[in-house]
Amino acid sequence: MSQISINNIAEICSQLGIRKAIISPGSRNAPLTLAFSRHPQFECFSISDERSAAFIGLGMAQADKNPVALICTSGSAALNYAPAVAEAFFQEVPLLVITADRPPEWIDQWDGQTIRQENIFGKHAKKSYHLPIDLSHQDVRMHAYRMVNEAIMECNSDAPGPVHLNIPFREPFYPTQGSEWSYNKDVPIMIKSTVETQLSTNAAEKLLGEFAKKSRIAFLLGQDDYSDLFLELVDTVSQRLNIPVFADVISNGHTLKNAVTLPDSICMNHHTATDETHIPELLISFGKSIISKNLKLFLRKNVSNQWHVSVERSFLADPFHSLKQLITASPVNFLSLFEKAVEKPSGFLEIWRQSNEESHEKTADFLTEQKIFNEFSALNFIMKGLPKESNLHLANSLSVRYANFIGLNPDNKIKVWANRGTSGIDGSNSTAMGHALAANEKQHFLITGDVAFFYDRNAFWHNYAYNNLKIILINNQGGSIFRMITGPQEQAELEEFFETRQMLNAKSLCKEFNILHLEADSYSILEDHLETFYQTKSTVILEIKSNSKHNQQIFEDFKNHLKS
Amino acid sequence: MSQISINNIAEICSQLGIRKAIISPGSRNAPLTLAFSRHPQFECFSISDERSAAFIGLGMAQADKNPVALICTSGSAALNYAPAVAEAFFQEVPLLVITADRPPEWIDQWDGQTIRQENIFGKHAKKSYHLPIDLSHQDVRMHAYRMVNEAIMECNSDAPGPVHLNIPFREPFYPTQGSEWSYNKDVPIMIKSTVETQLSTNAAEKLLGEFAKKSRIAFLLGQDDYSDLFLELVDTVSQRLNIPVFADVISNGHTLKNAVTLPDSICMNHHTATDETHIPELLISFGKSIISKNLKLFLRKNVSNQWHVSVERSFLADPFHSLKQLITASPVNFLSLFEKAVEKPSGFLEIWRQSNEESHEKTADFLTEQKIFNEFSALNFIMKGLPKESNLHLANSLSVRYANFIGLNPDNKIKVWANRGTSGIDGSNSTAMGHALAANEKQHFLITGDVAFFYDRNAFWHNYAYNNLKIILINNQGGSIFRMITGPQEQAELEEFFETRQMLNAKSLCKEFNILHLEADSYSILEDHLETFYQTKSTVILEIKSNSKHNQQIFEDFKNHLKS
Repeated sequence: MSQISINNIAEICSQLGIRKAIISPGSRNAPLTLAFSRHPQFECFSISDERSAAFIGLGMAQADKNPVALICTSGSAALNYAPAVAEAFFQEVPLLVITADRPPEWIDQWDGQTIRQENIFGKHAKKSYHLPIDLSHQDVRMHAYRMVNEAIMECNSDAPGPVHLNIPFREPFYPTQGSEWSYNKDVPIMIKSTVETQLSTNAAEKLLGEFAKKSRIAFLLGQDDYSDLFLELVDTVSQRLNIPVFADVISNGHTLKNAVTLPDSICMNHHTATDETHIPELLISFGKSIISKNLKLFLRKNVSNQWHVSVERSFLADPFHSLKQLITASPVNFLSLFEKAVEKPSGFLEIWRQSNEESHEKTADFLTEQKIFNEFSALNFIMKGLPKESNLHLANSLSVRYANFIGLNPDNKIKVWANRGTSGIDGSNSTAMGHALAANEKQHFLITGDVAFFYDRNAFWHNYAYNNLKIILINNQGGSIFRMITGPQEQAELEEFFETRQMLNAKSLCKEFNILHLEADSYSILEDHLETFYQTKSTVILEIKSNSKHNQQIFEDFKNHLKS
Repeated sequence: MSQISINNIAEICSQLGIRKAIISPGSRNAPLTLAFSRHPQFECFSISDERSAAFIGLGMAQADKNPVALICTSGSAALNYAPAVAEAFFQEVPLLVITADRPPEWIDQWDGQTIRQENIFGKHAKKSYHLPIDLSHQDVRMHAYRMVNEAIMECNSDAPGPVHLNIPFREPFYPTQGSEWSYNKDVPIMIKSTVETQLSTNAAEKLLGEFAKKSRIAFLLGQDDYSDLFLELVDTVSQRLNIPVFADVISNGHTLKNAVTLPDSICMNHHTATDETHIPELLISFGKSIISKNLKLFLRKNVSNQWHVSVERSFLADPFHSLKQLITASPVNFLSLFEKAVEKPSGFLEIWRQSNEESHEKTADFLTEQKIFNEFSALNFIMKGLPKESNLHLANSLSVRYANFIGLNPDNKIKVWANRGTSGIDGSNSTAMGHALAANEKQHFLITGDVAFFYDRNAFWHNYAYNNLKIILINNQGGSIFRMITGPQEQAELEEFFETRQMLNAKSLCKEFNILHLEADSYSILEDHLETFYQTKSTVILEIKSNSKHNQQIFEDFKNHLKS
C-alpha cells in the first residue's frame, strides 16, 4: 500500500472526525505513523507498551465521546491491545484499531513479527476489516476507502465500540528525502444520517396501558455515558410520577432527586425478605451493568416484569431473569411518552427514599466513628473532599465496591468512570491516564488497589505532561477482596494464591516517574496530607497503608452494622 | 463443574506428565487453583500479571521441554495471555492454557469478568476445547476427560504448542471446611505411542541420487531446540562430507566444527555478488527462523533448490523462495541416510570457512580496538566473559542482532534462547525469568534493550526466589534500532514516534525489587563492574549507558569495516 493511499486513509479519518491517535513504535506501521503524525488535524501520542496504549486510547475516547485511533506495528503488538479492545466492546467505547500487517506471502514463513492478524480480536471487535495490499486498481482503492468509511461508521454507531482495520504493507515504508507529501481533500467520504428511533403509536399505547396498571414502579440506571438531556428527563419523569431510581455509584445517577444511591446496602437485608413493600411490580431499566451485588440478587429474586430501554445489540441481556420488553426506541423518546402519564402513589418511592436515607445515616455513623485505621474509613474521609465537578475513576475490584458502599455527595456533581465492560484490573491506571490527558481542563481522581495499580504501572511510561491526575492507592499488599469473601478466607491457600501477598509500595515508582508521593497509615497523617493532596497542582499518589486483617474485620462489622 | 471433576482434571494432567502450573489470582478459577496447588505432583507459582505469567510459563516450558499449565480467572485475564500464546505457537513451546469461564447463561449479560472466551486465542492456539459445564451424566464426564487427554496430547505433539482448555464454572467455587478432598488415581488416561517417521526406500534413494549430483551443498540450522543426538549427527555428517553449516546465533549450532557462525556479516558483501563460489547448489535446512537478514537475502537471491527437513505443520514455509522438497522424516533418520554418501569436494566448505574466519577477525579487530564508549563494543566485551554452559537469553530487537554480529565462543557451550516465534519485545524479561526459575541449576544471562526491559517490568513482580539471572541492560533511552535503519533516520518523527525517547534507568526498579544495580558508561567502569557481575551470587542488572548517536556511528563504521 503506497504512502499516498495511507495519507488518504488518514484524511478520511480526519474528515470523519477522528482527532487523536495513539501510536506505538514500529517499522511496519511507519507509513501510518507518518500519515497521522504529519496530518494537521491529529493529536498523536507515542506510547511504547501497547497494552497501556490501548487503555489510554480508551480513556481518551471516553473523554472525547469520539473514536480514538490506535496504531501499532505487526506481530504480537496487536495482541497486547486485546484487553482494552474487549473492554471497549462491552463498555461500548469507540476505538479504531489500526494494525499494520506483513504482506500475506510472508505469513507462516518464520519471518519476524509475523503472526495471523486477520480477525485477531475475534468476537470482541464489532467488525474486522482486512485491507487489500495492492491498490493499483482504482476499484480496489475504492474498496479500501469504503472499508475505512464503514469502519468509522461502525465505531460511531448507536452502540459504539472497537473496530479493527488490518493493513498489510510491503517495503519500502519510508518516503525518500524530498519526496512530495500531501493530503488529498477529495477522498471518498460516505456519511450515514443520524436517526432517532421512536415507538410506534400502537406499541406506545400498549406500554402506557400496562404502565398505568402498576403502582410500584422503579427505574434502574445501569452504567452508561448518559446525556444530560436524558438524565434531566429521568429526573423530571421520576419526580412527577413518584418513581424511585436505582442508581449505584457507576450509574452517574446519584445527582437525581429520586436516586436510591445505596441500593447495595439496602438490599443486603431485603433480598431475602418476603414482604412486598420494596418489590417493584415493574422495573424499567436503562444502560448496562450495575455494581451492586445485593441489588442484583434482590431483583433476580423478586422482580418478574422488566422493560429494558436501549439501542439494539447483537444479544438480549436479561441479567435479572425478568426481561419482558426490549424497547429499542431512543431512551429520550421513550421517557417523553410518560410526560402525560398519571402519577403513582408516593408510598413506594417513600419506602425506598427512607431506606436510602437510613443506609446513608448508618454508613456515616459507622465510617465517621473513630476506629482503628482502615482503608474503608480512610476512603470515606477522602471521598467527602473530592472537588466539585471532578472525574472519579474507580478501579476494579475492591475500590469500586468500597466507593459504591460509601456513595457520593450529589452536590459535588462528580462524574464516575469504571471499566465495568470486562471488569478487569488490567488497565485502570492507563484508562484514567488517557482520560486525564484528553479532558485536561478537569481534575481526575483514581481510586485503586495495589494489585490493579502495579499491574498497569506502564501507564506512567510516556513523555506527555499531565498534572490533573491524583491517585488514591489503597495498598493492603495484595488482593484483599479475597479476604472479604467467605470461600477463600477459609482456604490454606489464601495468602499465596488468592490474596497474592505483594510487598511493593509506590515510593520507588513515584521517584522513577517524578510523581509526588504521600503515604498515610493513620488518620492524623491522612488529615495532614489531604490538604496537599487536594491543593497541589501536580500529579500525586496518596498511598493508604493499612492492615488487611483489620480491613477485613471492619468490613465485616460494617455489614453487621447495616443489618442491625 | 464439581471440585471432584476438577481434581480429576488435575490428576490427568499429573499422570500425563505436567509438573508446573502458573496461577493468576481470581475467584472463578478457585477450583482449579485448589486442585493444582494441593496436588502433590505440581509446583505452583502465583503471578498476578497474566501477560507476564504466560511468558514465565513459556520460559519454564522451554527449560523443562514439557507443557506448563497456565491457570487464570474469567474475563480479560485470558486476553493478557495472548502475546505469550502466539509466541508459544510459532516457537512451538507446549503450554496448556486453562481459563476459567462463566457459565454460558451469563455471557453478554453485563456480569463482571464475563467475555466471549470460547476460542479466544483464535489461530494462535493449536486447538481450543470448551468443556461442558454440567458433568452429571457419565458420558459427559468421559467427554470432558477425553478433551483434557487430547489437549495434552496436542501440546506434546511433534510440533508442540499452546492448547486452550476453557472451563466454565458455576458457584460455589470453594469447598466447605472439613469436606473430603482426594485425587482419584483411576482417572481415564489415553496415551499416544511415540513414532519416528522415516523416508521410504524409494524416496531415500531418489534424494541420495540428487544429493550425489551436487557439489556445493550447505546445511542451514534455523532456530529450534535441537537434541544433542541431532547436533552430533550434523557435526559428523557435515565434517565427513565437507558441508558448511550456516548457524547464526539463535540456531545453537555455533559449537559445530563446520559452523558458519557469522553468516550475516559474510553475506553483507555477498548477497549482491554475482560469482558462484559462495552459492550452494543445494540447501538442506532444519528448524525454523534465522536472524541474519543478509543471509536471508543472499539465500533468496541465489538459492534455487532447498530441502527442508522437519515434522509436518499446517503450513508450508518457504522463506527463501527456494523450497523443492519438504522432508517430514525425523531429522535424525534423514541425516543417517548420508552416513555412506560420498564426500563433496572441500573447496566450497573452505570458502565459507575462510569467509567466516575473516569475519571473526574483522569483527574482533573492530570491536576490541579502543573506541568511544559504545554498547556494541561493551557487549562484545561482556559476551566474551560469559561463563561456560550458561544460558543466554536474547531480547528482540537490537540485542539479538548485536549478539548475532558478535557471535559466541564455541568452547563455552553457551545455549541461546530468543523469542523469535513472533519476535515481540513484550515478554523477554518474563521468559528469561521463567526459564531461570525452572532451570535453577544453570546461570542465565539476558541481554536486552531499555524498551523491551521496561515494557515487561512486571516480570520481577512475584515472590519466588532466584539468584541465577543476570541482566545486561543496554539503555540507550529508546528504540535505537530505528536509528540504525535508513528510513526512519531521515524522518523528522525519529525521536518521538520511532525511537520513542524515554528517560528511565533501572535504578529505581532495582531498588524496588531488591536487585543489585551496576551501571557503566565507560570501559574502565565496565571492567571494574564485570568481576562483580560475574562473581556475585545474586541477581544483578548491569546497565550499559551510551549515547545513541555514537552507537549509530559505530554500527555504521562496523558495517563499512566489514565491507572493506
